[in-house]
Amino acid sequence: MTALSGGAEGPRALRPLLETVLDALAEGAARRGGPLPVGTPKELADLVAQTLADLDTSAGTGEPGADAEPLHRLTALLAQGSTDPADPFCAAHLHCPPLSLAVAADLAASALNPSQDSWDQAPAATALETLLIRDLADLVGYDPDTATGVLTSGGTESNLMGLMLARDCALTRAAGRPTELHGLPSGPVPRIFASAAAHFSVQRAAALLGLGEQAVVTVPVDRDLRMDADALAAALHRCTAAGETPVAIVATAGTTDTGAVDPLHRAADLAAEHGAWLHVDAAYGGGALLSDRLAPLLDGVSRADSVSLDWHKLGWQPAAAGVFLARHAESYAPLARRAVYLNPADDEEAGYPSLLGLSLRTTRRPDAFKIAVTLRTLGRAGLGRLVDACHALAHHAAATVDAHPLLELHTAPVLTTAVFHYLPQRPELRDPAARDTVNAALRRRLLREGRAVVGRTELPGQGPGRIRLKLTLLNPHTTPADVERLLHAVAAAGQAEEAEA
Amino acid sequence: MTALSGGAEGPRALRPLLETVLDALAEGAARRGGPLPVGTPKELADLVAQTLADLDTSAGTGEPGADAEPLHRLTALLAQGSTDPADPFCAAHLHCPPLSLAVAADLAASALNPSQDSWDQAPAATALETLLIRDLADLVGYDPDTATGVLTSGGTESNLMGLMLARDCALTRAAGRPTELHGLPSGPVPRIFASAAAHFSVQRAAALLGLGEQAVVTVPVDRDLRMDADALAAALHRCTAAGETPVAIVATAGTTDTGAVDPLHRAADLAAEHGAWLHVDAAYGGGALLSDRLAPLLDGVSRADSVSLDWHKLGWQPAAAGVFLARHAESYAPLARRAVYLNPADDEEAGYPSLLGLSLRTTRRPDAFKIAVTLRTLGRAGLGRLVDACHALAHHAAATVDAHPLLELHTAPVLTTAVFHYLPQRPELRDPAARDTVNAALRRRLLREGRAVVGRTELPGQGPGRIRLKLTLLNPHTTPADVERLLHAVAAAGQAEEAEA
Repeated sequence: MTALSGGAEGPRALRPLLETVLDALAEGAARRGGPLPVGTPKELADLVAQTLADLDTSAGTGEPGADAEPLHRLTALLAQGSTDPADPFCAAHLHCPPLSLAVAADLAASALNPSQDSWDQAPAATALETLLIRDLADLVGYDPDTATGVLTSGGTESNLMGLMLARDCALTRAAGRPTELHGLPSGPVPRIFASAAAHFSVQRAAALLGLGEQAVVTVPVDRDLRMDADALAAALHRCTAAGETPVAIVATAGTTDTGAVDPLHRAADLAAEHGAWLHVDAAYGGGALLSDRLAPLLDGVSRADSVSLDWHKLGWQPAAAGVFLARHAESYAPLARRAVYLNPADDEEAGYPSLLGLSLRTTRRPDAFKIAVTLRTLGRAGLGRLVDACHALAHHAAATVDAHPLLELHTAPVLTTAVFHYLPQRPELRDPAARDTVNAALRRRLLREGRAVVGRTELPGQGPGRIRLKLTLLNPHTTPADVERLLHAVAAAGQAEEAEA
Repeated sequence: MTALSGGAEGPRALRPLLETVLDALAEGAARRGGPLPVGTPKELADLVAQTLADLDTSAGTGEPGADAEPLHRLTALLAQGSTDPADPFCAAHLHCPPLSLAVAADLAASALNPSQDSWDQAPAATALETLLIRDLADLVGYDPDTATGVLTSGGTESNLMGLMLARDCALTRAAGRPTELHGLPSGPVPRIFASAAAHFSVQRAAALLGLGEQAVVTVPVDRDLRMDADALAAALHRCTAAGETPVAIVATAGTTDTGAVDPLHRAADLAAEHGAWLHVDAAYGGGALLSDRLAPLLDGVSRADSVSLDWHKLGWQPAAAGVFLARHAESYAPLARRAVYLNPADDEEAGYPSLLGLSLRTTRRPDAFKIAVTLRTLGRAGLGRLVDACHALAHHAAATVDAHPLLELHTAPVLTTAVFHYLPQRPELRDPAARDTVNAALRRRLLREGRAVVGRTELPGQGPGRIRLKLTLLNPHTTPADVERLLHAVAAAGQAEEAEA
């Protein structure tokens, strides 16, 4: 069990272990027998603890390392204890079922273990990521010759990178010289503008960057959770009038809940007017660029200074497959790093390229590889068909909700989600607070009974009545009939809650 | 090619694709026929570009998605174009050859695709990570009942987390109330103390956190690159006397180049005296904790407020397998996040746990799984034997260098690296600058000729004469004879450079 995955012998060592994993995955899925394991989190945690204790090598039972039993048992346990996004009744989050193709490609990344922080740890993978970033820059409408970017762990890291570059760009301008590495000056109050439906990673990035969460100005949204462009304009004017610095506007292209796309052209106009950086969080909505039908939703994205994409959402990759793109490579300067053991100047002069200065990380798995394999196998057109299939499912879900007497739709789907709530029938459960309680409880009931994994969220605002349920449809093989059955299960769980309330 | 990896059908869909990958890995390794591909980066990049162009689906050649040809060709290309850490002549970086066992376990993570940001995306994986963190807290000597932690993308992210908590702890204390989310106050200048041999991610974190790189006070090191504790004490006194705030001390347990371990007890004493946070970067040296023989090197690590470990270094995991540990769970408060769609309060009250507030990321691959499988298969004892084997190889390398007339050792190995340089024989190449040039060039010659991947670094300080070569010995199956042959190849490359200089 100390055989390595590399070298000429690696594939031979891997083969029986991969067989063990496949057998255990099938065994665990059969034991689960549905979208998630039946029971409470406590029951599952106890099972995990017991299995780990049984396998504890320090207890001195048997010769450690002699066989694949721990691999088999723990893999079967992981499969049994998973929520499976490949099950049509698992439709809660932007948590896609990966393509087998992408998973197989990811095995090559694990086995060879290139690390993108220096050429001599990843010769081919360095070239491959560079070319993939060109393809993706082209996809968002950037000029691949002047844009740049990097693979990230996801939208949260990509949004952080966009806001970091925005911060350092604003500081450099304010100081009239590069200050990005020299700490935050006391001076004009920095402001970031994002809608009330923007991802919470915007606040998180502001805190991490030392700007503070209060630097984020929350712009109101309309009923579809799209940023109100007039409200954004007014907020920017108030900021400038108060002598504050508008560092960045974060426009969301595909909000987590409704898939709403903020008005990108208006945001770009306002960013230009106020000298603010425009970052577009297209972690979810970027998938629309793969579909001829949906791509127009993102019109204007190419005017952003930076963009987040996540191929582990509408891209069917196993996590992580995040992408950060910047329109102008020179805006990336604050991240440049010279590490004497990774990218010495004379090696770069001798033609050895380095991606070190493109990433916040040092060691970095070649997540570009699986995306490149997927794109070269299915093409944009093939992936676009999967996006369209999920989009159609969301519309079918919305129509089903609309026609159901116990369910109420929030708004028409934009991308691949449908947001709704269950309507209690007992009069005393109809007030907003009681209705929230029933909706939250019915979702937990579906989890506990192992029946379904549906999403739950809250609309922006204050007070009760904002809890909603959500189907996030990312499985292109789900059928319209599956969606109907899932919604009927939701309604039945609501009725069961009412009966017990 | 749109089959999913999950569900009952997933293993069946995966099996032939995994066979394709194994065949292509073997084919690519055979084509490479050594530790790395022969040639220049440009030649390899051209090959990658040509292969991607051949497979371009938008060119309209053939029906996209019909077969596994792109998977096969790109995997073979990645293997051919890799530096293979499983080859004894690939010994440059903290870039380990993964265990087949860990790679097989990682396949399960990809196929099931749990995401650690909510229980309902990762029921068993949530429990498993929680228990693994307890095991790892115990390994560093923390009380598992009061410590906490999370899997990270590596030491860079772990160091960032430690310094973020240190910053927010200092700000809270300075303000007498929680300010961590409210931006950096103007006030006492924050300072971070790290040695001249600490990892560059410390500066990077300071810049990202808005403290600025100049917040990092560089403490001198001795010849072994160990932090000078008296110099640290003096620097802290100067800081306090100037009315500045000593936010954190970063002690390195295993510097990248020499594996030096800073004086941890002295650092802990000084941190306590000055009210500074102690972060120990044990990304490399943490592996010593697996070995009974080497664990005493890290005596004192349990006094740190936070620790970085990397199981993709001395742990033989494919990237990423970083770990961040904090001694007191309550110090983690600044990261706590309530996201209505991920961890609503009523779900937590109902027993659904959430790891969201432990990580800087949102979507997060279950990297804990492969570590848990490895630990339960080999045990600490089995992994310790691998650490000891690499440690012994480093000592053999040092002895071989010492005995070689053309090579000069820097200092005795601490962990698993040997730092040295080639001694030019031609008198005009013996001055420090010329010697540097020869050493840098001989390393590139070994790369270009596909013979070996050896490390190159620079000792701290100014001026020429600081370039050193380095063997980072992380392959436990490498033999002493392999190490001798590798060092002879280095010397031969030096002679070839001299002949051409």
